[in-house]
Amino acid sequence: MSDHIYKKIEIVGSSQTSVEDAINNAVNRAGKSVKNMRWFEVQEIRGHIDDQKVAHFQVGLKIGFTIED
Amino acid sequence: MSDHIYKKIEIVGSSQTSVEDAINNAVNRAGKSVKNMRWFEVQEIRGHIDDQKVAHFQVGLKIGFTIED
Amino acid sequence: MSDHIYKKIEIVGSSQTSVEDAINNAVNRAGKSVKNMRWFEVQEIRGHIDDQKVAHFQVGLKIGFTIED
Amino acid sequence: MSDHIYKKIEIVGSSQTSVEDAINNAVNRAGKSVKNMRWFEVQEIRGHIDDQKVAHFQVGLKIGFTIED
Amino acid sequence: MSDHIYKKIEIVGSSQTSVEDAINNAVNRAGKSVKNMRWFEVQEIRGHIDDQKVAHFQVGLKIGFTIED
Amino acid sequence: MSDHIYKKIEIVGSSQTSVEDAINNAVNRAGKSVKNMRWFEVQEIRGHIDDQKVAHFQVGLKIGFTIED
Amino acid sequence: MSDHIYKKIEIVGSSQTSVEDAINNAVNRAGKSVKNMRWFEVQEIRGHIDDQKVAHFQVGLKIGFTIED
Amino acid sequence: MSDHIYKKIEIVGSSQTSVEDAINNAVNRAGKSVKNMRWFEVQEIRGHIDDQKVAHFQVGLKIGFTIED
Amino acid sequence: MSDHIYKKIEIVGSSQTSVEDAINNAVNRAGKSVKNMRWFEVQEIRGHIDDQKVAHFQVGLKIGFTIED
Amino acid sequence: MSDHIYKKIEIVGSSQTSVEDAINNAVNRAGKSVKNMRWFEVQEIRGHIDDQKVAHFQVGLKIGFTIED
Amino acid sequence: MSDHIYKKIEIVGSSQTSVEDAINNAVNRAGKSVKNMRWFEVQEIRGHIDDQKVAHFQVGLKIGFTIED
Amino acid sequence: MSDHIYKKIEIVGSSQTSVEDAINNAVNRAGKSVKNMRWFEVQEIRGHIDDQKVAHFQVGLKIGFTIED
Repeated sequence: MSDHIYKKIEIVGSSQTSVEDAINNAVNRAGKSVKNMRWFEVQEIRGHIDDQKVAHFQVGLKIGFTIED
Repeated sequence: MSDHIYKKIEIVGSSQTSVEDAINNAVNRAGKSVKNMRWFEVQEIRGHIDDQKVAHFQVGLKIGFTIED
Repeated sequence: MSDHIYKKIEIVGSSQTSVEDAINNAVNRAGKSVKNMRWFEVQEIRGHIDDQKVAHFQVGLKIGFTIED
Repeated sequence: MSDHIYKKIEIVGSSQTSVEDAINNAVNRAGKSVKNMRWFEVQEIRGHIDDQKVAHFQVGLKIGFTIED
Repeated sequence: MSDHIYKKIEIVGSSQTSVEDAINNAVNRAGKSVKNMRWFEVQEIRGHIDDQKVAHFQVGLKIGFTIED
Repeated sequence: MSDHIYKKIEIVGSSQTSVEDAINNAVNRAGKSVKNMRWFEVQEIRGHIDDQKVAHFQVGLKIGFTIED
Repeated sequence: MSDHIYKKIEIVGSSQTSVEDAINNAVNRAGKSVKNMRWFEVQEIRGHIDDQKVAHFQVGLKIGFTIED
Repeated sequence: MSDHIYKKIEIVGSSQTSVEDAINNAVNRAGKSVKNMRWFEVQEIRGHIDDQKVAHFQVGLKIGFTIED
Repeated sequence: MSDHIYKKIEIVGSSQTSVEDAINNAVNRAGKSVKNMRWFEVQEIRGHIDDQKVAHFQVGLKIGFTIED
Repeated sequence: MSDHIYKKIEIVGSSQTSVEDAINNAVNRAGKSVKNMRWFEVQEIRGHIDDQKVAHFQVGLKIGFTIED
Repeated sequence: MSDHIYKKIEIVGSSQTSVEDAINNAVNRAGKSVKNMRWFEVQEIRGHIDDQKVAHFQVGLKIGFTIED
Repeated sequence: MSDHIYKKIEIVGSSQTSVEDAINNAVNRAGKSVKNMRWFEVQEIRGHIDDQKVAHFQVGLKIGFTIED
């Protein structure tokens, strides 16, 4: 078996409803331009407050994917 | 446009159901005494365990708000 | 009142649906071999991506429990 | 039981004798303006040196207290 | 000489020209409501980009001030 | 001389009087079930506040001990 | 309103004169290949010393930009 | 497919020759009492110096293993 | 002399034999699509364990390269 | 008033009795070769365990002192 | 070409006007006793506040220099 | 037995072949001017890339040595 090489990119997903939804949005969008995604690592959880209420959850994550030879 | 100044305060919200709910509780409570809230940054996620089950999710966050001149 | 002593162990729970569910799974499983659990501290949130979608949320946590005399 | 909300403030206590004394000084002083204090978290331990000897221990701590509804 | 107690607050200053100016703005604004300021500690340097150019430097800092007895 | 292997465990000791006493309590209790303890590393210093006074110092530490072959 | 997705890239700008100039250089160069830049976060400030004097300030920053659908 | 639960333990391996050898020693020794090991994460690289030369490389690592139901 | 601008990318190399080999694999693979690489910074050292033995060393690194005008 | 320049050195003090004593030992010993010491910053608190009891508290600190022109 | 060895020292420069000036002051002063300085790394940016205004910017930096054989 | 005092210095070793070799080079060179070295702590692993290949591994380490009375 060969030794794999991975690349990580950093994406921030946002969602009006949940942390998980923000992660899913980020992964789904990244999948439009990146193939062979393998894992993600949450870097930070933040969000905007609008009109005194949470408006968006924003989750920064690193996404790792296999680089093909 | 003038240069804004913000203040950050640190609040811990808790919830029996979810991380998002704990964040919402913290933001809603902070809004009773602070105006012009703009963003939050999650600092830590912890919780109490009672009777061998998760009893509360506790989320520590910093809340940033505009200080008016 | 005596001075309590606690031990912390590190567990990674996973879930196909949510961060909270992964935490609950970790705490429930830990409870099979550890008594008197008192709190948890989230250390990291990661996950696997399969077929270009989030397959599992993985939450690493420390669980603190009282050591009896 | 309701979901509690806490606020954290950051105080630096100092003492010519010990780390514990600096913590006690900080907590006692904070208690003059804050009610329902629940816990503290040490952030840093520093100090001044005067005439080639330790003059003051300075302990930075966060103090958490319950915000009443 | 008595043992001093300090409080730290967290302020974000912004400026269209420089990091130092953002710090000065933050300290000047904080001085309107806080007396006896003694030191600051830079926590983060960020900024907004508008129309493909840096629009504001934002500097987050902690400001320490003496609490009088 | 052979190459040693060590294990680290994480213990939280508490004391009503001092940081050192909390460390001693943790090490003494750990010694009831672990042999050949060699060193400790303080991870965090926290504590409970009760009735507006420090009630307990809590010190989290890692304890390293030799694993025998 | 839709939920935005951002990407972050990491750039190091350098300047013989100032930290701000190094940031501006980095943002301006990034703007040649990236559109819709929104914010930057300083990661590190370093520099080269030549002939016993500061020759370059080097500022590492993350730049966030909106990914269009 | 079920949701896996993992436990992490912290081991320090040492070796007179290399970092990799210290890691292998730690993993091999841990395998005597732990089954289903899956991954390791290096936490720190240190070592002893004796007679003005490196005597041992010491590598602290966390080892993750599947907890069976 | 002009002021250089660099970009950093994050790559994970793996190797069955050593940390250095994993770094070399990562740098060699990155060189297929990136020119003018100048330095690397190790971010993390991890690895897979298979059949109770280290199967792969995985080294995450940032690679810096000059962006040409 | 001129702009001061300081140097920091890193010292580890040890004591069989307390953290404060270890700090004092470190500062006193440093003062034999360094003049104009101004402050210290605790970096780590560790210790040796001997015969199942704490044998030494070890406190690593940075000591800052004015460099004269 | 031989393998270089470098030493790092930690210096705090101060300036009434700017961060860059504080860095320059630190590097210039260090150059009086250290030769072959090669790079610096900013560790912290702090400052004194006097009479409710920033009195000094203080920049802590590590300076690396080649040790000759 | 007396209470030992240690000093730490920070050295960067480099090697064209391995991390261990870079550590050995750093320790050997430090031993020319420092006596009674006791331990080292790796701070960072970096390196130069030349002609699209790793040219040097650079390992930053702290070296602790006993200060004699």
